[in-house]
Order: sequence, then C-alpha cells, then structure tokens
Amino acid sequence: MGLVVQKYGGSSVADAAAIKRVAQRIVATKKEGHEVVVVVSAMGDTTDELLDLAEQVSPVPSARELDMLLTAGERMSMALLAMAIGDLGHEARSFTGSQAGVITDSAHGRARIIDVTPGRIRQALDGGAIAIVAGFQGVSQDSKDITTLGRGGSDTTAVALGAALDADVCEIYTDVDGIFTADPRIVSAARRMPHITYEEMLEMAACGAKILHLRCVEYARRYRIPIHVRSSFSTLTGTWVSDPINGSEQADMEQPIISGVAHDRSEAKITVVGVPDKVGEAATIFSSVAAADVNIDMIVQNVSAVDTNRTDISFTLPATDGRKGMEALTAIQSAVGFESLRYDDGIGKVSLIGAGMRSHPGVSAKFFSSLADAGVNIEMISTSEIRISVVVRGDDVDTAVSAIHRAFDLDASQVEAVVYGGTGR
Amino acid sequence: MGLVVQKYGGSSVADAAAIKRVAQRIVATKKEGHEVVVVVSAMGDTTDELLDLAEQVSPVPSARELDMLLTAGERMSMALLAMAIGDLGHEARSFTGSQAGVITDSAHGRARIIDVTPGRIRQALDGGAIAIVAGFQGVSQDSKDITTLGRGGSDTTAVALGAALDADVCEIYTDVDGIFTADPRIVSAARRMPHITYEEMLEMAACGAKILHLRCVEYARRYRIPIHVRSSFSTLTGTWVSDPINGSEQADMEQPIISGVAHDRSEAKITVVGVPDKVGEAATIFSSVAAADVNIDMIVQNVSAVDTNRTDISFTLPATDGRKGMEALTAIQSAVGFESLRYDDGIGKVSLIGAGMRSHPGVSAKFFSSLADAGVNIEMISTSEIRISVVVRGDDVDTAVSAIHRAFDLDASQVEAVVYGGTGR
Repeated sequence: MGLVVQKYGGSSVADAAAIKRVAQRIVATKKEGHEVVVVVSAMGDTTDELLDLAEQVSPVPSARELDMLLTAGERMSMALLAMAIGDLGHEARSFTGSQAGVITDSAHGRARIIDVTPGRIRQALDGGAIAIVAGFQGVSQDSKDITTLGRGGSDTTAVALGAALDADVCEIYTDVDGIFTADPRIVSAARRMPHITYEEMLEMAACGAKILHLRCVEYARRYRIPIHVRSSFSTLTGTWVSDPINGSEQADMEQPIISGVAHDRSEAKITVVGVPDKVGEAATIFSSVAAADVNIDMIVQNVSAVDTNRTDISFTLPATDGRKGMEALTAIQSAVGFESLRYDDGIGKVSLIGAGMRSHPGVSAKFFSSLADAGVNIEMISTSEIRISVVVRGDDVDTAVSAIHRAFDLDASQVEAVVYGGTGR
Repeated sequence: MGLVVQKYGGSSVADAAAIKRVAQRIVATKKEGHEVVVVVSAMGDTTDELLDLAEQVSPVPSARELDMLLTAGERMSMALLAMAIGDLGHEARSFTGSQAGVITDSAHGRARIIDVTPGRIRQALDGGAIAIVAGFQGVSQDSKDITTLGRGGSDTTAVALGAALDADVCEIYTDVDGIFTADPRIVSAARRMPHITYEEMLEMAACGAKILHLRCVEYARRYRIPIHVRSSFSTLTGTWVSDPINGSEQADMEQPIISGVAHDRSEAKITVVGVPDKVGEAATIFSSVAAADVNIDMIVQNVSAVDTNRTDISFTLPATDGRKGMEALTAIQSAVGFESLRYDDGIGKVSLIGAGMRSHPGVSAKFFSSLADAGVNIEMISTSEIRISVVVRGDDVDTAVSAIHRAFDLDASQVEAVVYGGTGR
C-alpha cells in the first residue's frame, strides 16, 4: 500500500493498442492496493508533427504560442489513457499541468518548476480515482501562461509530483529494461544495473546517458524520491535510482566500484586560437558565450607559447548551440584580439562513472592505459570525484567505450544480487 | 474604430496555407483600427480524427475525458494562428476557453455558457494585442473541468464573447457568401439575403439552415449583437443578422415579406399506433421520450377511430435520436397499452420563413397551393407567427423547396438595396 507515480513516455502510448496495454498495467498497480498517479507524454511522434506544423506557419514561432501548441500533445494522450482505464472499470481523471498545480517560471520552452500544488490530484486520489497528469507542461506563476519544461520534462513532472505527494516510488517506464553499464548497441556484454545512486545517475545523465534527464535526477535527489526505471514491455525489475543502499558505511562494500560507461556524441568543440595572454581574457570569452545562453561543458587552456605570448582556449558545448556560440565569439573578436576560431563537431565524449572510485586508487591509471592500449587519442580530460571524462574523435567512441567496459570487468563485476529493498514497491 | 469579433470555422483553418491567409485577413482588420478578438475552431477534420482515436480506445468514452481530448483541437489551431499573425509583425495571444473566461455548466459535450468573464482578453486588447480564443470550449463553474459546447459551439463562443466585450459586430466566417433564400444546390436561382432579423434567423436555424446554430442566434438576439455571416474566401458583404432595419414601423415597408425557404432531412418520424384514447396517455408517451433526452419537433394526433376508441400519435425527432426514442417507447408499451411503433426516416421538412407574413394574409394559401400544384403530399404541418413548416417524403424535398421558392418570387422579390447600415462595420 503506497502512492506510486508512473511515467509513460511517448513510445509507450504511441497508438490505441499501446494506450490500452498501458491502461491494463496501471489498473494492475491500482488493484495491488496502491494510489496511482500517472504522468504521460504525447503519443509517439505527435510533438514532432506539431513542431512541423509550427514551422509551416512561422519560421520563428512565438515561444508562448509554441508552448500552447505543443501542450495539445499530452492533452490527447492523457484523455485517451483515462478513457481506456475507464473502459476497464476504474475511474481515471486527467489533468493538465496547470490543473495538477505544476507552477513554473515564465521561460517558455524550458520552464523550471517553482512549486507543485497538487490539490486536485490529492482530491482525485482521495475519491478513489487514478489521476492522469500531462507531463512536460506547467503554468507560469506570473502570467498564468502555459509553459513547457523542455527536454526530459515529463520525467521531471513525475518526480516533482512524486515529491509533492510524498510518493513511495516514481516509476519511469521506457522501452528498455533499465540503465545499462554501457550502451548495449556498442557493448553487447553490457548489463542492466540493479541499482545506481542519485550521484552516479547525475553524472551518467550529464555524460550523455539518455534514459533519465539531469533535471529529473536532481529533483529526485533533492527530495529523496526513489526512481525505478523499467520497461513498459515487461514486468521485470529495472534499475533503482536512490541513496546508497544499506547506509553509507556499508555502501562501498556492497556496491560495485564502477557503475558504467556513458558516451555522448551531441557535443562540439570550439577552439579560440591565439588569445593574448592577459588577465581577464578567458573571463571575457566565457562571459560572452554565457550571455548567448550556451552551456559550456569542458574547457582546456594551453600553456602560452613563450615567443608569441598567446594561447589557445578550447571548450565543448552542445552542437545544437554551435552557431550561437560562434556568433557570440565572432562579435568580440576585435575587442579580445584573438586570431581565429575553429569549430569541430567530429568529437565524442566518453565517461566512466562510479561512486566507488572515491575509495579505490588506480582507477584513473587503468582508465587511461585501457584507452592507450586501444589506440585512442585523448583531446580533453575532465574529472569529478566519481567520474572521469575524455573527449576523443567521434570515430573512436565505440572503441573507447568497449575498451573501458572490458578493462573494468563491468560484465563480470555486476552484482545482480544487490536489489533495492526499500519501502516502495 | 470598434471591437470586432471574428469567428473562423474548421474549413477556414484547414492547413498551414489557410491559417496564413486567415492571419492576413485578421491583420487587415486590425490595421483598420479595430480591436480584434478571433474565435477559431479546430483545423479541418481534427475533431473527427480525435473522435476516431477515442473510439479506438473505448467504445463509450468518459464524457469528461472526451471533452479533454477534443479541446486539443482548438488548442492547436489557435496557437498556429497566433504564430502566423506574429509572423506578420502583429502581436497575438491565444487563450483557451477557460483562460478566456467562458464559464459553463457541467454537461460535458453539450455544456451551456453560464457566464463570460473575459478579463484576460480585455487585458490583451488593452495591450494592443489581437486575442485568439478557442471556440467550442469552456470550463465548468462547479468542478473546474474542461467542457465543450456541442454542435455550433464556436459560433456561440464568438457571440458570447462579443456580448461580454460589448463588440460592435460578430463576424462569422464560413465557406459561402452568406445566408441564401434557399439551398443553392437545390434552387439555382437562390440569392444571398443582405439582411435577416434575429427572429427569422432563429426560425431558419430551427428549420435546418446549417450556417448558424440556434443557440448562437438566441444568444445574439438576447444581447443584441449584430452578426455578419460572410465568406472567408472573399471580401464581399455577406448577410447581416440583427434587429429589424430602420425601426419596426418601417420594417414591413422595406423588408421582403418572405426571407427564405429552409429544409431539413435530418429528422425521422415515429408513429405510436393504436393508443387507447384515455386522458394522460399522450403525456405519458411524451414524458418517456423527454426522459430519454430526446427533443421532439412536430406532433400530430389523429382523431380516434369511433369503433376502436384508439388513435395514432406521430411525432418527429432528430434521426440521430431515433434509437433512444424507440427504446424509451418500447419500455412503456405494456403500461400504455398501444399496439405498435412505426419508425420512418424517409421524411424531410420544408419551411417558409418571413417576418412579413404576419401582416400579409394569403401566405398560407399560396404556400399550400404551390405544393399541391407540384404534386407534393403533406404528412404533417406546424406553424409559428413567421413560419410554416410541412413534413413531406424525403424524395419530395427538392421539388417542394423549388416550388415554394418560385411561388413567392424569391429571386425576383430580393431587394438588394436593403443593406445593413448599423454602427458596426
């Protein structure tokens, strides 16, 4: 007996048959005696189709109106899902983000949740109904306009509602069985992780693992909502994302040192060539990029050449922001006095993540020697307490992922017996 | 300078090209110096497609959820229209029925407007923006659930908003040039009426003229909002619906005696055969039909046969309600003791409408002799002060409409010079 939030993505509700299947799954959860809140995305390709329509009407559509348009997607899927559940003899009531009390700021297209006031959801649950909530959307606090949360928004909706309703678990349904030690399309020996900590999951998400979005994990960690990532096509246990198991003392004993290998081909690298080596030049460069609303990931600054007193600064950024970044830098070229810009979108990032590496020396050494043995050249390096990332040539990504996965015995080190035994279901 | 409400139906916003064309028309109105509020229906076949999806998911979908689903339709068209206007350099803000303050009762699928509180629309207009409002939808006063207004709902939204905002005119855009003296597909000599009174339009709508829905005209009459029915494909003046022109004294002098001929093939006739001729039997019959939520149109009760002391009662109803009506009557057959039921959906209704017939005797005589000359058999008759309706065989409808149109010289009697010269545009 508990409160379960379930989130179904677009592929889980792609058509009428899929919606009916999901409805049965929801009803089964309800029959186990749980209160059930369901967060649903738009059906299949709906969002892309709506974006396409917008493009036909206007090359640069108003952000407010684009949000109004896109939110029609979840409206359809949630109403259809509620109907399908009603057909199985259970009451379901659908709610828009606004009706569910998802209050956001006014940043259309990438709004952040400020507050969740799920009074109507609580009321529906108290009345014995299943609540279906539109993912990805909210209403702005100031102007009461409809907003969308941006990429991964539905996951964030689910966790935020889970936090506001004090849910026992937030189940994220997807089309794979959980989170893997590496992308199975690259490493056939990759295995499902039974458990991963919030911290590790944050690093995984930041390093390109697509299953959970960074914001959703951040939210879950802040409010200590356990997430269960699982397949909507099976009833298998998936991957639990939560605090370290059995308290921090024993965690290192039972958890694998390394969680997994993530990779990301969506970034590009900009190199600012010939920057005069004066105080404040780097600050000027990165301020201008930040002002263009571009997130910078990794930075490398070379040692200045003695003869010219000039240096090169390289950084990575999402390739989709590449043009914005280049324009912002071009605008300050004469002011800063750098020589030229180089743009390179043929890169890839490969990361090794594991909370256990804190207490195990030698991880870095093994990491770099595995890449050297595989003949992979490293262009940039960045590390955190529980992560090592390198930028390599895009063509080398698969080789690098496989080499690291093998070096850390990830298929063998998998401790399948460690399953989450918390209070949730 | 005034406030103009424009309503565009689904065929006017069927695709991106149509939406862009409508956007230009709206901007042109704005440029004339008017405040503009636009009410828009769902694009083309969207509503039918959504209904089809609902049917795939559930044979008897929840009415609340069906409304949630269908309202996605206007959400898309209104956001796209606002984008297209934005692209022309004018600010447009879209609003759902709920945001526009369209407050209704809780009858999902056929909600009635209780109140309109267009504070956000007024605010948008005051800010110089064009307001785009979703037609057909509102929010229930009690439960704050999303509702739809049923057939003709977008027209009603437009007039209701017009009333709440004290609009100078409510322009209803459609795919024909206005309201005609008869259906041009039947009578090639049919002509556009430059003006028709609310009263006459109410009778026309009730008698099957499809262009304006009864509820919309009722609303317009109550709040004295002039309606201008016109084509979205031309800039021609269409048909004005308003109070009698130039005051009631002169109205009869300037207005044609007869406005037009309407027909309706959407009704069916039920005959209750062999009803015992006792007090209260008719009441029992019609109460049972009313309890099944079926609207009865015309009623004929024959004189009882002397030998059996039994009579037949016939009535017409929308053919779509035929099954409900038959089931309701079958349920009371033994209690009432009638012999049998006959169902006939091969009928049609033909009506002559004109405020002028009040003061012109001889209209009925000419009406019936024209039908007799054309060899059309009459099955039922009903009249009001400004209307004569008959039920005939469905196959005779075209013949009857043509004969009446000709008999009253409708193509010749047309006074094109009488155009509305009110304060609206």
